[in-house]
Amino acid sequence: MNLIDDRESAADLAAYAAFFEMAEAIGLSGLLDGGRPFTLDEVAEHGRVSGTGAAAFTGALLAAGLLEPGSHPREFVPGADMAGRRYRAGYVSWSMTANRPYLDHAAEILREPASAGNHPRDGRKVAVSSRWIGSYGFYPGVADEILSRKPQRVVDLGAGAGALLIRLLTELPDSTGVALDLSAGACAEVTAAAGRAGVGDRLDVVHRPIESLLEDASPVRDADLVHAGFVIHDTLAQPEVAEGVLRSCRESLAPGGSVIITDAVPYAGGAERAFSALFSYLHSGSMNVELPSEEQWRALLHRAGFAEVTVTRLGMPGARMMVAAG
Amino acid sequence: MNLIDDRESAADLAAYAAFFEMAEAIGLSGLLDGGRPFTLDEVAEHGRVSGTGAAAFTGALLAAGLLEPGSHPREFVPGADMAGRRYRAGYVSWSMTANRPYLDHAAEILREPASAGNHPRDGRKVAVSSRWIGSYGFYPGVADEILSRKPQRVVDLGAGAGALLIRLLTELPDSTGVALDLSAGACAEVTAAAGRAGVGDRLDVVHRPIESLLEDASPVRDADLVHAGFVIHDTLAQPEVAEGVLRSCRESLAPGGSVIITDAVPYAGGAERAFSALFSYLHSGSMNVELPSEEQWRALLHRAGFAEVTVTRLGMPGARMMVAAG
Repeated sequence: MNLIDDRESAADLAAYAAFFEMAEAIGLSGLLDGGRPFTLDEVAEHGRVSGTGAAAFTGALLAAGLLEPGSHPREFVPGADMAGRRYRAGYVSWSMTANRPYLDHAAEILREPASAGNHPRDGRKVAVSSRWIGSYGFYPGVADEILSRKPQRVVDLGAGAGALLIRLLTELPDSTGVALDLSAGACAEVTAAAGRAGVGDRLDVVHRPIESLLEDASPVRDADLVHAGFVIHDTLAQPEVAEGVLRSCRESLAPGGSVIITDAVPYAGGAERAFSALFSYLHSGSMNVELPSEEQWRALLHRAGFAEVTVTRLGMPGARMMVAAG
Repeated sequence: MNLIDDRESAADLAAYAAFFEMAEAIGLSGLLDGGRPFTLDEVAEHGRVSGTGAAAFTGALLAAGLLEPGSHPREFVPGADMAGRRYRAGYVSWSMTANRPYLDHAAEILREPASAGNHPRDGRKVAVSSRWIGSYGFYPGVADEILSRKPQRVVDLGAGAGALLIRLLTELPDSTGVALDLSAGACAEVTAAAGRAGVGDRLDVVHRPIESLLEDASPVRDADLVHAGFVIHDTLAQPEVAEGVLRSCRESLAPGGSVIITDAVPYAGGAERAFSALFSYLHSGSMNVELPSEEQWRALLHRAGFAEVTVTRLGMPGARMMVAAG
C-alpha cells in the first residue's frame, strides 16, 4: 500500500474523494460521519431521493468500502477509517475542486496574473475542502493548544461555519465566545450550528471583516484567547493592516491572554514540499497572497507588540501554529 | 509512505495532480515527459509565457520535486518517477476533473438520471486523464499482447488521439493500421501525431462511429487485429448493435486474426473495489452504461461468433483485456 510503488492506492484515494464530494452534494456527509449505523430511509430523507436512488448510491458506497452492511439489509455502518479517508480526500478536493478555476485557467493566469480575478473560486467548495483537511491537518493541534489554556473568553477571527469555536465552547462549559467573519452566509451557518450544539447563548456572531478591528476592537475586548485561522494572510498586501489588527488584538486581550494564528509558510521543504509548493504557488500566483516565512511571521508579531512567539508545525504541509503572548 | 497511515502522502498526490493539470493547460506536458533536460527558454516558448512567468511556474515545480535543477540555473531535469506520478495523478484527474459535472450535479442526477445529459463532460479532460491512467493502467498490457502477435494490419476502434496505434506501428515497421473515431478532433490529432511520428504513410484515419461497421465493414477488412478500447460499452444500450459490430469484425478478420477489447467489468472486488465502484457508479448513473460482467463479456463475444475468449485483468481497477479469436 505504498503510494509510490502500489500504483492502485492512488485510485482508491481518487475514488473516495469523488464519492465524498457526491455524498456532500447529496446531503449525506452527516450520516457518513455520524459514527453510527443508519438506514436506507434516512438516506432517502437526508438526500431527498427516492428509495431507488438511495439504494443505488449506498450500493456504490458499499462496493467501494466506504460503507459496511448493517444488521439488516436496509441498514449501513460507516466504513473503517472514515475520518482518515475524509481527511486525505480533503487534499484532493481542495487541490482539484476548490481551486478548479485556477487550474482550468492556469495558462491565462500565468500570462496575466490579474486575470485570476475573473475566475473566482466557489467559496463553499473552499470551505468544505478546507474543513476536511483541517479535521486532522490543523484543528486538533490548535484546539488542544487552546483548551490547555482554559480561556474564559475566546474569539475566532474568520470563524467560517464556527466548527472550531463550537467545539471549544462545548469543551469549556463556562466560557463565552465571539465568531467574526466577513461572510454573511458563514455567520448564518455559525448561528444555526451553535444553536444545534446548545452553545448559542454563549456565542456572539459578528459579521465584519477583520480589518474592522482597526476602527473598533470591541469584538476582541477582554478576550483570553484570539484565534485567527488562514485570515491574517489575506491582509498582508498592506502589511500595516495585518500589524494593526494584531496590535488591536494584543491591546484588547485580558491579562495573560494570547493570540494564536493558524496559517502557512511558503515553500516548506522536506516531506511538506509538494503540497506546500502547490499552496504557495496558488496563493502567490492566483490569490495575490505572498505567504510570510516563519521568520517573517515572528517579526510581524513582534512588531505588533508581542514579546513571546512560538511556532509549531501542524499536520497540513506548510501549516504552522504561531502562539503569541506577552 | 503508506497511503492509509501516512496522511501526508495524499497531499503529495493531490499536489502533483494539480501541477500536472496546470502544466497541461500551459502546454508543458511534453517537456515534463520528454525524459531530457530542458531550459527556461523552452518553457517560455512552449507555454507562450514571459521569462518571469516561466521562472515562477518552474520554481514551483522545483519546490514540489517534480523538477530537479539542471547543470546551470536556467536548466531543469524532469524529477524522479515522473511517469509513475503522472499515472497516479491520472486517477485523481479522471475522478475529480473529467467527471466534474457529474460530481457537482450528483444530487440532481441521482434524483433524475436523465438530467445528466444536461451536464456533459469536457471531452478533452476525459481524453487527457484517460491517457494518464492508461499509461500504466492498460496500454502496456494491451500493447504487449498485440505486439506478441505481430499483426500485419491493425485497426483501433475508438482510437482517440492514436497513441496506442502509433506506438504499435512504430514497433511494427512493416505493418499498416486504421484509426477509427467518431470525433473529428481526435481524427485530426491522430493524423498530425502519426505524421510527427513518421508513420503517417502506413495509417488510415476513418472518421466514423463504430456502429457504422454494421453497414460497411471495410475499415476492418483483412485486419489481423482489431482493438476496441472503452468503446464497445457505449453501444451496449442496444445489445444487438454491440454484437453486430463484433460479428462484423470477426467476419472481416484475416485468417488467424483476433479482436482485443480493453474495457471494464462492474463493481470488481478486492483491491479494485474503490475505483471500480466509482467507475461503475458514474457509468451507470450518469452515462447510462451498464458495464457487462466478465461472464457477460464472454457471452457477448461467443454470440458474435468467437470460439476462444480469454479475459485478463489490467492495472486499472476493474479494467479487463478480452482476447477473442477462432
